[in-house]
Amino acid sequence: MRVSKEKAAENRERILTEAARLFREQGLSGVGVDALAEAAGMTHGSLYSQFGSKERLAVEALTHAARTSAARLSDAGTLEEYVMHYLSADSRKRPGEGCVVAALVGEIPRQGAAVRHSFTDVVRAVTKRIASLMPGRRKSEDEALAIVATLVGALTLARAVDDDLELSDRILAAARTRLMSH
Amino acid sequence: MRVSKEKAAENRERILTEAARLFREQGLSGVGVDALAEAAGMTHGSLYSQFGSKERLAVEALTHAARTSAARLSDAGTLEEYVMHYLSADSRKRPGEGCVVAALVGEIPRQGAAVRHSFTDVVRAVTKRIASLMPGRRKSEDEALAIVATLVGALTLARAVDDDLELSDRILAAARTRLMSH
Repeated sequence: MRVSKEKAAENRERILTEAARLFREQGLSGVGVDALAEAAGMTHGSLYSQFGSKERLAVEALTHAARTSAARLSDAGTLEEYVMHYLSADSRKRPGEGCVVAALVGEIPRQGAAVRHSFTDVVRAVTKRIASLMPGRRKSEDEALAIVATLVGALTLARAVDDDLELSDRILAAARTRLMSH
Repeated sequence: MRVSKEKAAENRERILTEAARLFREQGLSGVGVDALAEAAGMTHGSLYSQFGSKERLAVEALTHAARTSAARLSDAGTLEEYVMHYLSADSRKRPGEGCVVAALVGEIPRQGAAVRHSFTDVVRAVTKRIASLMPGRRKSEDEALAIVATLVGALTLARAVDDDLELSDRILAAARTRLMSH
């Protein structure tokens, strides 16, 4: 049975959305092909025949997640609104739907070249977009890189220490204050 | 054969040093008990009889690594010297000997309660020490938390994108500039 082009594209989109969610929630090394296939409602074999390898699927899922975040970032309006959303309690509790850089950064040094390259592309793209939201007099990619570092560090730390919610809240608030005041 | 108390303490120290290095290099979930036993020059069984579980060993190794870093941080002198060292190319290439917070932060949300609690204790301790290095007029734990977030974010990002060394260097430099100028 042949599947129409639209249907095939729709399927692919759904698989990538599920894979991107699982990878962000459980880590690249924490998710096996079986779990990916199950979440996508496919057999192990058909997932392989479509993507070739777990690494290839990870590359596409990473790019897919970044594209979705980019669309959201374009809607963010101001840098201030973006920072307030990024460093919110809601964003802390939803790694599966949030920033792919924050969710995966710790694991990337141990990945293969293809995953590493696509991650680096995502960091470059996020930095460009942050720079484009900056007020004219401060607009610089180096300044944007420092902002990205603070955002990613604060969100990953806040998630790591959320067994102490007061400390976790203080990290988010301190980073928001620092980013807004300079 | 009985082992003297000093010898036993020395052995324990050596095992924790090796375990802390491996966990930081390969991640908590990336290192198995076999690799830990091999690095410590012990059998799987004797490692278990000494520590009880991989989680227990991880808790002790984390605390051990934090104690070693704390000693180094006390030697750092000024906040500026500490930041310059933390965000250096040398620190980027040696996760196994560096900051345990930066090396493990991404994995912590998926760990058991004991590992999570000891990680949170380390974050609190690092923050207090950073605050103690801050010049009097700026000294505040909230400001210190924002500094820790920027340090951890910049170092983890710089390691993740070091397939593009120029970008990686720029992240370290941008974070140094931001932390030194405010």
